[in-house]
Parts: sequence; C-alpha cells; structure tokens
Amino acid sequence: MPLSKMSFSRSIKAIFASFSPYWLACVPLSALIVIFWNTAATAQGLEPPANLDELRIVLDSIFLLLCSVLVIFMNAGFGMLEAGFCRQKNAVNILAKNLIVFAIATLAYWAVGYALMYGEGNAFMGTSGFFFSGDAAAYGDDPYPAAVPPAISFLFQVAFAATAATIVSGAVAERIEFAAFLIFSTLLVAISYAITGHWVWDGGWLSEMGFSDFAGSTVVHSVGGWAALVGAAILGPRIGRYEDGRVNAIPGHNMGFATLGCLILWIGWFGFNPGSELAATANVPYIAVTTNLAAAAGGVAATFTSWLKDGKPDLSMIINGILAGLVGITAGCADVSYLSAVIIGLIAGIIVVYSVAFFDSIKIDDPVGATSVHLVCGIWGTLAVGIFGTGNLLTQIIGILAIGAFTVIFSAIVWSLIKATIGIRVHTEQEIRGLDISEHGMEAYSGFLKEADVLAAGSSMANTDSELSGSLR
Amino acid sequence: MPLSKMSFSRSIKAIFASFSPYWLACVPLSALIVIFWNTAATAQGLEPPANLDELRIVLDSIFLLLCSVLVIFMNAGFGMLEAGFCRQKNAVNILAKNLIVFAIATLAYWAVGYALMYGEGNAFMGTSGFFFSGDAAAYGDDPYPAAVPPAISFLFQVAFAATAATIVSGAVAERIEFAAFLIFSTLLVAISYAITGHWVWDGGWLSEMGFSDFAGSTVVHSVGGWAALVGAAILGPRIGRYEDGRVNAIPGHNMGFATLGCLILWIGWFGFNPGSELAATANVPYIAVTTNLAAAAGGVAATFTSWLKDGKPDLSMIINGILAGLVGITAGCADVSYLSAVIIGLIAGIIVVYSVAFFDSIKIDDPVGATSVHLVCGIWGTLAVGIFGTGNLLTQIIGILAIGAFTVIFSAIVWSLIKATIGIRVHTEQEIRGLDISEHGMEAYSGFLKEADVLAAGSSMANTDSELSGSLR
Amino acid sequence: MPLSKMSFSRSIKAIFASFSPYWLACVPLSALIVIFWNTAATAQGLEPPANLDELRIVLDSIFLLLCSVLVIFMNAGFGMLEAGFCRQKNAVNILAKNLIVFAIATLAYWAVGYALMYGEGNAFMGTSGFFFSGDAAAYGDDPYPAAVPPAISFLFQVAFAATAATIVSGAVAERIEFAAFLIFSTLLVAISYAITGHWVWDGGWLSEMGFSDFAGSTVVHSVGGWAALVGAAILGPRIGRYEDGRVNAIPGHNMGFATLGCLILWIGWFGFNPGSELAATANVPYIAVTTNLAAAAGGVAATFTSWLKDGKPDLSMIINGILAGLVGITAGCADVSYLSAVIIGLIAGIIVVYSVAFFDSIKIDDPVGATSVHLVCGIWGTLAVGIFGTGNLLTQIIGILAIGAFTVIFSAIVWSLIKATIGIRVHTEQEIRGLDISEHGMEAYSGFLKEADVLAAGSSMANTDSELSGSLR
Repeated sequence: MPLSKMSFSRSIKAIFASFSPYWLACVPLSALIVIFWNTAATAQGLEPPANLDELRIVLDSIFLLLCSVLVIFMNAGFGMLEAGFCRQKNAVNILAKNLIVFAIATLAYWAVGYALMYGEGNAFMGTSGFFFSGDAAAYGDDPYPAAVPPAISFLFQVAFAATAATIVSGAVAERIEFAAFLIFSTLLVAISYAITGHWVWDGGWLSEMGFSDFAGSTVVHSVGGWAALVGAAILGPRIGRYEDGRVNAIPGHNMGFATLGCLILWIGWFGFNPGSELAATANVPYIAVTTNLAAAAGGVAATFTSWLKDGKPDLSMIINGILAGLVGITAGCADVSYLSAVIIGLIAGIIVVYSVAFFDSIKIDDPVGATSVHLVCGIWGTLAVGIFGTGNLLTQIIGILAIGAFTVIFSAIVWSLIKATIGIRVHTEQEIRGLDISEHGMEAYSGFLKEADVLAAGSSMANTDSELSGSLR
Repeated sequence: MPLSKMSFSRSIKAIFASFSPYWLACVPLSALIVIFWNTAATAQGLEPPANLDELRIVLDSIFLLLCSVLVIFMNAGFGMLEAGFCRQKNAVNILAKNLIVFAIATLAYWAVGYALMYGEGNAFMGTSGFFFSGDAAAYGDDPYPAAVPPAISFLFQVAFAATAATIVSGAVAERIEFAAFLIFSTLLVAISYAITGHWVWDGGWLSEMGFSDFAGSTVVHSVGGWAALVGAAILGPRIGRYEDGRVNAIPGHNMGFATLGCLILWIGWFGFNPGSELAATANVPYIAVTTNLAAAAGGVAATFTSWLKDGKPDLSMIINGILAGLVGITAGCADVSYLSAVIIGLIAGIIVVYSVAFFDSIKIDDPVGATSVHLVCGIWGTLAVGIFGTGNLLTQIIGILAIGAFTVIFSAIVWSLIKATIGIRVHTEQEIRGLDISEHGMEAYSGFLKEADVLAAGSSMANTDSELSGSLR
Repeated sequence: MPLSKMSFSRSIKAIFASFSPYWLACVPLSALIVIFWNTAATAQGLEPPANLDELRIVLDSIFLLLCSVLVIFMNAGFGMLEAGFCRQKNAVNILAKNLIVFAIATLAYWAVGYALMYGEGNAFMGTSGFFFSGDAAAYGDDPYPAAVPPAISFLFQVAFAATAATIVSGAVAERIEFAAFLIFSTLLVAISYAITGHWVWDGGWLSEMGFSDFAGSTVVHSVGGWAALVGAAILGPRIGRYEDGRVNAIPGHNMGFATLGCLILWIGWFGFNPGSELAATANVPYIAVTTNLAAAAGGVAATFTSWLKDGKPDLSMIINGILAGLVGITAGCADVSYLSAVIIGLIAGIIVVYSVAFFDSIKIDDPVGATSVHLVCGIWGTLAVGIFGTGNLLTQIIGILAIGAFTVIFSAIVWSLIKATIGIRVHTEQEIRGLDISEHGMEAYSGFLKEADVLAAGSSMANTDSELSGSLR
C-alpha cells in the first residue's frame, strides 16, 4: 500500500528534522575535503584562434552555445504552455515541475546520462565518463582544434535530455505527486533516454542499421511521449474528466501563457533542429527554413481542421498544430525538400486534431495534448524521413518500435514501482482543492478572486458562460 | 450586404461537413504523388568551410539565422503587447491572430511574396521564384561561398514580412472578424508589402532614386501602419469608445504581458536592425548601439512627456515610447551618429504621446497605438535619415508618399472587398460579449472572476477605482 | 521635511504646465543646431573581413552582440520575477520601474558611467570619454582589426550596468516613490557602479592586487545587493509585514510571471558569464557548463532545503535557489572545476533559504529576496574563487569589503538626500491602496475581480485559503 502524500511529506520532514541545523556545518568541511582532489579540467587558457581550423571550431562552439541557449529556453516554453493549459489551482505545481526538472535533468545527465549516451561503450550503451570526467570531458582522440570542446557537446545534449523529461510533465499534470514526477524524470534522463539515444546518435545498433532521426522526432519527442502515455495511463484521468460516456472539457486557465509558450518553443526549435547539424555549416539555414515551413503548415492545417470540425478556430489547436508541425519535421529537417516540409507539417497539423480526440475516446487524459504532439507526430515525422527523405521506411519502423518498446517497458516498470512505494497520485480531496495549496502551500494568483472562491462561499452570484462545476475548477 | 459572422462560420462548417472524413484519405495519396516530382533542392551535404571566404559566409549565415530568430521572437512580443493592451474578453482572439499570422505570413511569403520582392523582375516587382524555387532558391549568379545561402535570406525576409502583418492586428483589435484579418494579412504579405519592398530593397525604382531605409522604418513599419490605419478607419471605433464628445479610456487587461512584450520587441530589434546589414561585419555593433540609444531615449522622453501632460507616469506610454524610439531609428541606424540616435529617439518618444491623442481626436480607434508607433514614427525615422544622416530629404519624402499611397490604396480596396463580401466587423452583441466566447468559444482566463461576471449577475458588490461600464469591460 | 508624493507630482505638473506646448517647437530647432556639430563617428563602411584576424574580430563582435542581447533580455527576467513576487496592486509600478530603468541606465552609462569605468584615468576611476565620444568610442590604441569595435564593448557594459540597477528595484518594491527610484538608479549606474567596476575590470587598484571576479559576483550582483539593502533598510518594511513579533507572509501575485522570469534570467546568464570572456574562444563552452551546473545545483539544493525546513517544496525557493547558484558561480565560472561548480551552487542554494529567513528576523523587508540572492550569494561566489579557484582568499575578502563599503556609503548618502528632499516613501494610504492607482492611475489587471474589491464592498462572500487582511492585499 502506497504511503500517502501527506505522510510522505511528513516523513521527509521527520527524517530531516532529526538532524540539527548544525549538519550544515558539514558543508564547508566537505567542500574543503573535496577541493584537494578536485583538480579536474578547468578552462584551458587557450590563445585566440590562430588559424582557420581553430577559428572554424570556435565558430562551431559559439553556434552550438547559442543553439543550446535556445533549446534551454524551451523549458520556459513548456512551462508557460503547460501551465496555461492547466487550471489555475494547479499552476504553481506545473511551474515548479517544469522549472526543477531542468535542474534535475542537468545533474542526472551530468552524473550518469551523458556517460550512457556518449561515453565509450558498446552498441547498446556507453559505459564511461560518469560525472562528465575522464576522456568524455577531455579533448580526446580529436583534440582541439580538430573538434569542438566536449563542454559544448555536453551542454547541447543536456538541453535535449531535459526536453524529453519536460514532455512528460504535461501529460501527467494536475494529479501526480510532486516527488513521483521528480523521481521518474531523474531516471528517464539518466538511464532510458540515454540508452535509446546511444542507439541512434552515438553509433549504436540502430545507427548501424541506417535509422535516420536527424534532430530527434523519435529520440527525444517520441521517447518523452511514450513515457508520458504510460504515466497518464497508470495515473488515470483527472476527476470529472470522463463522466457518463461524455468528455468534459477542462479549459486551461491562461491562454496568454500558452500562446507565449508556443512562440518560445517555435524559436527554441531554431536551436533544436539547426543545432543538430552539430557544426556551423552552410546547411544550417536550409534546416531552419524547413523547420519554419513545417511549423507554419502545421499551424494552418490544425486551425482549419479544428474550424471545420468544431465550427470555431480553437486557439489550443492552433498552438498544438504548430508544435505538431515542429515535431513532425524534426527527424527530416535536413533531408527533405521545402515542399515536403510543408506537406509533413500539414499532415502533422491534421493528425494532431484527430489524435487529441482519439486519446479522449480511449480515456487517456492528457491535459496539454503532449502525447498527440510529441508521440504521435514524432512517429509521423520519423516515418516521413522514409517517405519524403532518404531514409528506409522499414528501418524507420524498426527504430520506432524498438525505442518505443524499450521506453514503454522502462516507464511501466518505474511508474509502477513508484506507485507501489511512495504513491503516484494525490488524494481525491487534494486534487479537488488543487495541488498548489495541497502540495506547495501557496497560490499562483494571490489576491485574485476565482470562481471556486464563490462556489466555496455558497454564493451563486457568478453567471459566466461556462458552467460552474466544482470539481472542474 | 455582408454575410454575418455567424452565418459565415456556419457556411464554412457546412461546406466542409459536406465532405465525409474520408477526404482525409486523399492526404497521404497526394503526398505519394507529390514525392515523385518533389526532387527539388535539399541540404547540400557541403563540407566544413575550407577557406577564409567560406568561413566568412558561414559566419554571415549563422549571424543572420540568429537575427532571424530574434525577429521571429518579435511575434511573441507583439502578441503579448497587443493582448495586454486589450480587454480580457478579447485576449484569446488577439493571441490567436498574432500566432496564426506568422504561420500564414510564412506560407504566403513562401508561395508568392518572396518572388514579388526578391525574384528576377523589373523596377516595379519581381516576377519569378514562386514557392521559393528555381534560381531564387538555388545558388545563383553568386554561388556559395561568394554569397550566403538563399535559405537564410529567405528566412530573414519571412520574419520581416510577418512583422508588417502583425502591426495591423493591434489597430483592428477587439472588433474585427477573425477570417477578415486572416485574408487581409495574407494579401498584404503576399502582394503589397512585397511590391513596395522590392522598390527599396531589391533595386527597384525608389532604390534607384537613392531612397534610404536601412532596416525598414518605411518598408516594414509604415507599411504595416498604413494598412492598420485604413483598417481601423473602415472598421470604425469600438462600441463606447467615443461618446458625447468624450474619449472613454478602455484600459488594457494585463500590463505584465504588455511590458514583457515591449522587452521582447526591444531585444528582437537587435536582430531587426543589425541583421539588416545582411552580413557579419564590424559595423554591426555600431548599429546595435544606435538602436539601443534611441530606444532608451524614446522611453525616457515618453515617460516625462506623459508625466507632465497627465500628471502621472503612464506605463503604456513608457512602452510606446520605447517602441517609438526603436521604429524611429530603424531607417537610420547605420547612418547617424550616437548623439543623433538619442535625438531621434527623444523626438519619437514625444511624438508618440501626442500622436495617440491626435488619432483619438479624429476618432480613429487604435487599441494599442500601433498607428502612432509604427506609422507616425516610421515616417519620422525615414525623414530623420535626410536630417541627421546621408539621405536626401526630398527623396525620403517621395519614398514615404509613394509607398504610403500604394499601401493605402491597396488596403482600402482589400478591406472594402472583404467588408462587401464576408463582412469585416463582428455583430454588436458579439463585440459586447467579447470575441473570445463569440468567435472562439473559449475564455482566456478560465476560472477567474471578472467584473463582467458580477455585472451580468446584477450584483453591485464590486467597488473598484474604475467605473463599471458594461460595454467597456 | 520631505515633499509629499502628491505635491511632488503636482509640482512637476505645475512646472511643465507653465510652459506652453509651443516649447515643443524648440525640439526640431535644437535638432537642426545639433546636426551641424554632430559629425562624430558613424558606421565605418568597413569591407567584409579580408583576413583571419579581421574575421576573428568580427566573430568576437557577433558573439558579444548576442551575449549583450541575452543580458539585456535579463531586464524582462527581472521584470517578470519581481512583478510576480509582488502584489497585483503594485504590479504596474514594478513593471514600470524595471522597464524604464534599462532606458535610464543606457543614457546614464552613455553620458557618464562608461567614462568613469572604462575611460582613460587612474587607479580609482576613468576621467574621459563622456557621452561615449573621443578615444573611448574611436578605435584607439588597438585599431580594428586588432580589437573588437568599441561599440560592442559599450553595449555589453551597458547591459551589465542596468543589471545592477534592476537588482535594487525588487528590494525596495511596493513602497518606494517612483521618482526616488529613478534618481537613485541614475546615480548608481552613472557613478558608484562605474567607479567600483573600474577598480576591478579596467586595471584599477583591486585589479592590481589580484582580486578575481570574472563576471561580476561582486562587481555587479553585490553592488546591486548592497544598494538594495541600504534602500530597504532606510525605507523600512511594508505596512503589516512585521506585527507582534510575527512575520506575515505577503505572497506574490503571479507565480507564472516569476517562473518565467527565472527561466529568462537563466538563459540570460549564458550571455552574462560566457560573454565576460569578451571574445569568442574555446573557453566559452566551459564557462557555460559551469554556469549551468551551478544553477541546477542551486535549484535542487534550495528545493530540498525548503522542503525539509517547511515541509513543502516552495516554488519561490526553487526560483531563488536557481538564481543563487547563478550568482554564486558568476565570479568563478572560468576558474573552477565542474565538480566545484556543483558544490558552489549547492551551497548557494542552501544559503539563500536561510538568508531570506535571516533578513526577516532583522526586519529588513525585501519583497523578492534580492538581497539574499545577489548580495549574500554574490559574496559567497567571490569567496568561492579563493576556495575552489585560483584566487587569493584574503584578496577576495579585501575586494568584497572595499566595494561593499564604497557602495554602502554612496547608497546611504544618496538615499538619505532623496529622503530629505523629494521623499522616498509613498504615503500610508497610497501604499494600502496600491502604487498602481496612486502613482500611475491605472490597474495592472483591469476587468478582473480582486479580493480587495470584495473587502472594499464590505462583502464577505470570498472564502479562500489565505486570510483576507486588508493591508496585505
């Protein structure tokens, strides 16, 4: 029987309370000890680039740094998007998750993930370079200026790893325990994402087969999407979401945040896709243009698809259509023509509208549509390399299935273990009250009156267009 | 007589409903057909830059890519700014417009606009390179590494084209039909903006005359501003805006969004102006500094002008002053001294305060001040090149008038045609209720209590500083 | 006796009202006069880089431009963070301060600050190059292409100077007079920050001693922090903050803004720290990685520290922990190992939680925790260079004390002079009503119902989790 959230929280407090504050005195002490053996690589005092090769490598490094910044900025995009699509009573929780997950991903990938993904190893996984040390962090076989500094490869990959984890947070929003999400994210980034990434991007077995996924429709987006799908399925839907065979709309609370998030993600993708060239080349602009065309086509397709399907242009579908186009072009952005990019985006934008309806029809509750955007369009994008690009369609399918199977099994095991130990879902009364108060003890919008306040007061003075159903606010 | 919005929406639905969902089966079929002839240019598998010229071009490309990203980010800036300056009941609508307009601009400029603006042609317009194909997309007379890849020129220009369209959305906000705006934006980007842009930036007749507009005070900002002015005039003011000879303030609903939008636009301009150098040169920092000085001077001037005029420092005027300074320096940023940049910005910041009052005095209702910022200060900035820079003042005036006349005539025709066919303005009851519910069927801030809810309930429990006038909420 | 705010505002209005609007006619006149002697340096029409050295310098310039953009974007980060952490009734005020302060800092640093900091001079201060003219603005001893254009050094330094001023705004929020803040910021940037910056970063006496502060833990963050601390102390706490020996929580009003602000600051730091290398070198990625590791470690440490201390993971502490890690690594980012960066961040994240509690215990009311983040962790980061890096610990302490003493004395004098003349703090009734209405005549969230509206109406229909105490809303 899982520990309840309250008792878990109390346990943590009790454990730590048993230490006196003087344990903090250990910190500087530990620090002093550490610095004696802490003589690893630091910045190398290199001279300014002295020849063409050195200058080229420095340009590659600066380019990848700026791409990394754009990808890291996607954390703000996901944070705004997911918070905007959820209810205000859970906004602090989703913001906290999206913020801390990049910190945790950074440390988990630094300690373990980078070694499993890019360390020396075998066709299945890397086995060296933990804590970004040794050969992985030093200039190795290809010393500067023959190759970019390892630090920039590491930073770019950290940013990617965090993306996979962030995708999960949207699908499990509004009912997952905070600690459960932190633990799952850590393990996903450190182990599962790293291993399947190694298969494709560090000479692993899928790479050997010719599987083509330039910037990660499968390696990043589908992996995040599969983990999200398994999480959402094991968690079950939010209270009140599916009743009497109906799907109750639970509208997001801040469409300004959601739209801002979409536009931040759009520009973040100009780091994600062009940066995956891993060097400043004359191909980079080409990749940026296919990326932009697919995003635009996805947005337009989803707008008109939802307009004709429901009679009104739905802003959340415009947003998800743009993201669908971006996920769809991620695998093939360097490998398809401009026209193909538009077609890939158009199809992704249509798919995402119907995919959202499909998951609701099987009662998988994904508050932000992350599974439709990242998993379904990630699969579509990977297939598209076999249709419009130079990839082999059969190999693409094998890659999708292999990575999907590994991620699903890994996720199912980890989510189940978490459920069986500390618990995965908040209590009913916590969910109704909202995670902000119950898990974090604070409100996202202090000082504002909410409809729930009025309901709680038993007053029916509000007369809004939407029906006031207590459990859905 | 124009079709009403409701019947338009119903018509669209009816038209599409007459197709069964099985029409979607055509999509993959079409795709398959397409890929057989879809053998156009893809990324070229170029080697890393091997000599100084190649490396220089790659640096130019990376620089322009990052400038493009900054300019594309301006869509988020305009979205936040305009949404913040409007009422919450229309926030979804303005966000949807600002989001989809970049998608539409991308596709319209790809299909038609880029060819009219930069294709081979004559002094009036380009006539080749539709769908970014043929010579326009290939390395042409100046093959790599003699010139940057066409893809990056295209991306940078797409970002600029979208800016012109986005400017319009603010001035026509809170009462325009969604479909009307989409159609106008598409035509503006595809045709009008592209043709007048060709006159100045692709060797057209104004360029031959010596008209100087480095980064687009006229080519981008005034063009957007003229189109916005004509649209606002044809639409008429919002209900309740001008009554009994008074101007009723209709305050924006989220000054946090508006301020964020301003700061995003500020950094976006570091792509807009320096990127207009079209290459990574030692002049780029100079342009960035004049840009920043003018923005700062505009903000300070507008702050103190509004402070002395109205007794209080008005945040919307700080915001519009900064943007006024930025628009003002756009034409001359590479061509005036630092001190001139400060003066140009100061004057722009003063102008914008009085311009906003002026347009209200003639009952042109521009909810966000777009006409004052982009049209009036765009004209000022273009003149300033003749006063402070190397431009000829008479030529500058000719350019302003020619581009203004063309854009006004084009806009008047298109807006009138839209008005006469599908209709341009929502119904009175839709406008009072808000476009979010009436056009999109959703709220921007679900779960929050709004003053309008209280009014609707007939309760007068709210006692805020602003008067509660139903039509203005 | 200080002039009251209202009378100050009225005085300004009266002074300016005594001029007729025709004074504006002076503006173009002055402009015409100015342009005759306004023949200073403009963009130089340089050819594309023709050799390796020129290309290297151009790459350096582009790199520094993009770093400047990231640092300038931090103004949006601080604006969102500080607005989010304050109450909605003061949101316009804090947004206006954070927006105009970058404009003012730009002009103040252009006119005076850059000359004092980087002009030719002595070990204490620079004495030439006011209004960024003469040798300071021209290519001097090291003409292009031997060194980057002065314009880019200036822009990068402007962005830094504004950061110091912005830090102050958070600590004095919700009770300071708008004009008082503007005056203090101007003087801080123009004089105090510039002089102490000269000591460290332009060959001044601390630099001669070997004081090491790579990107400004002390030069920027502690300086802002000291000025903030003195301001907060002289202002006194907000009404109702400390009563009967209790600390009353005054929760922030928009945690979405605060979280977005944190993530913007996080990416801004990738301009702040790597840009401080002042050139595109192979060290830049290394600096980016230490920066990111420390941020992540700070966030994780603060999360778990606050979780164990208060039983719940506090989103404001996650945010402040990340910023603490970033401030902590700023001095040593180029000089410590990866592992040391993690340790520096972890310790900063623990420190910030206890520091916030400490300042409350001595009744220094800092609404956003700016003093804890920037001053305390700035000191910690500067010491850390002596512990984990190559700095001499004693020299580091001397530098911290010298810069701290100068900034405290300067700030105390300026704040006191402001207090004695125009007044520093708004009236009690203005503070209770909120600065948005009383200082700016506008609301941040027009159309929304707030708890304060309900209280004002004498209705007790609201029943929220937080107690409704009039003075704290």
